[in-house]
Amino acid sequence: MTGRAQPDARSSYRHFLPIQTRWADNDVYGHVNNVVYYSWFDTVVNEYLIRSGALDIERSEVVGLVVETRCSYFNELAFPQAIDAGLRVASIGSSSVRYEIGLFATGADLASAQGHFIHVYVDRRSRKPAALSAPLRDALQRIHACP
Amino acid sequence: MTGRAQPDARSSYRHFLPIQTRWADNDVYGHVNNVVYYSWFDTVVNEYLIRSGALDIERSEVVGLVVETRCSYFNELAFPQAIDAGLRVASIGSSSVRYEIGLFATGADLASAQGHFIHVYVDRRSRKPAALSAPLRDALQRIHACP
Amino acid sequence: MTGRAQPDARSSYRHFLPIQTRWADNDVYGHVNNVVYYSWFDTVVNEYLIRSGALDIERSEVVGLVVETRCSYFNELAFPQAIDAGLRVASIGSSSVRYEIGLFATGADLASAQGHFIHVYVDRRSRKPAALSAPLRDALQRIHACP
Amino acid sequence: MTGRAQPDARSSYRHFLPIQTRWADNDVYGHVNNVVYYSWFDTVVNEYLIRSGALDIERSEVVGLVVETRCSYFNELAFPQAIDAGLRVASIGSSSVRYEIGLFATGADLASAQGHFIHVYVDRRSRKPAALSAPLRDALQRIHACP
Repeated sequence: MTGRAQPDARSSYRHFLPIQTRWADNDVYGHVNNVVYYSWFDTVVNEYLIRSGALDIERSEVVGLVVETRCSYFNELAFPQAIDAGLRVASIGSSSVRYEIGLFATGADLASAQGHFIHVYVDRRSRKPAALSAPLRDALQRIHACP
Repeated sequence: MTGRAQPDARSSYRHFLPIQTRWADNDVYGHVNNVVYYSWFDTVVNEYLIRSGALDIERSEVVGLVVETRCSYFNELAFPQAIDAGLRVASIGSSSVRYEIGLFATGADLASAQGHFIHVYVDRRSRKPAALSAPLRDALQRIHACP
Repeated sequence: MTGRAQPDARSSYRHFLPIQTRWADNDVYGHVNNVVYYSWFDTVVNEYLIRSGALDIERSEVVGLVVETRCSYFNELAFPQAIDAGLRVASIGSSSVRYEIGLFATGADLASAQGHFIHVYVDRRSRKPAALSAPLRDALQRIHACP
Repeated sequence: MTGRAQPDARSSYRHFLPIQTRWADNDVYGHVNNVVYYSWFDTVVNEYLIRSGALDIERSEVVGLVVETRCSYFNELAFPQAIDAGLRVASIGSSSVRYEIGLFATGADLASAQGHFIHVYVDRRSRKPAALSAPLRDALQRIHACP
């Protein structure tokens, strides 16, 4: 039905955040629900930007709107295990960025799931596309992974 | 950065479920967070399957595992508005199905967001691919939309 | 272990909002998770305040901080059923309000769960207690239920 | 309006789980939403029971139904900070348990929020109250804090 993606290695990501799963992450089938993975995408992207000084949720004039997301699922994860969210930047445009995220069981080398997340940066009030700020561009360059 | 999808018309979907947004759907930017849209994908797909008699969460021998999801976002939605989730089946394989979902503001003709969701049907215990049951296949045919 | 609360009748509430359950509301035990009920509390309280013109999420100078919440659970609810959230105001202080919420299966007279929610109204910037505005006080009076 | 609870010290809890906040935990006011705290209650209680060998989500004959929860909020928490969830057992009945949970900013001695959670243990199928198993009773005794 689709050319299935292959799981990435941990070494292909540039920044990692450990995340504790929660009771509510498991759905009725006893594994982490497909939607929860996207909440981890949001979490690692914004954690990186905030900790890098590139985003201030309250005050930044420019904020990232999500225009496209995608995820491929390879192996189940389940509460109460902890996971590592890996992040890299795949491409940087004038006002948009493609982030790629891999989710790994603790100690695992291959991703349990992976996907991407395209941010278009816009003025917080007008919601019109805005150029990437210098601090943001710097933060992105530090985790840029050329394919 | 990517060939952007164009929003679908409401008439291209075959089944609809009205959903009330919730306070927690809005994130700090005051609009529905990108992750929430996927929880509506899950909701309309499973609501349709359960109400059609094709899925019994507790007892079905065969359950759907999600192997790939994707969403494109066109217009913001925000609590407290209600939305309509539209559903159609785009293709039916031997043990997999591609669902397509459009999310519409009440009264709007064009989708605010749309995406797909690929289920592989597996045996609940072994998690090995399993043939679609006759009731499931019937339910899928009723909302099959040839491109 | 505790003097258990008794379920309220639907007629003891003053405002109602129908809410569609979602796939993710069910936890691994196949019923709506206890946490989700509180997301419905937030939803009906804020929906009422916004629709009454008493709260503008973006612009109100005064916002409600939650200082205490409580819920008693009587009967299970489960996706895909719809529910009705009932709301009343139990007491109005100078800068605080006690809301009471009952959650009903569609068509049921007795609450499946009920609880309360105490808002202290504060200045959005300083987070210091602030007097209730006249429009807020009016909106609260309209659903005030004397015990 | 209510005799406000006072924040507990960290030393009054017996088991701790570090939890990474997530982007979606913050609501439109830029702090962790009141509902999310309850998802941490669920998480630390069940993590403790599973890691202690007292609960097997898939197979345990006896499962805990939540009959009452309550939370008092003292100080705001916000993504991306990490928190520690502290747990103790306050009372053990024949088929019910009162858990108490304190949520702490990393390094803080006083709880940012605290509450309780009453589980009634029931047979998974019949949903009738069931005696606490010996492994469960042992696990509870190890974190029992006499007031």
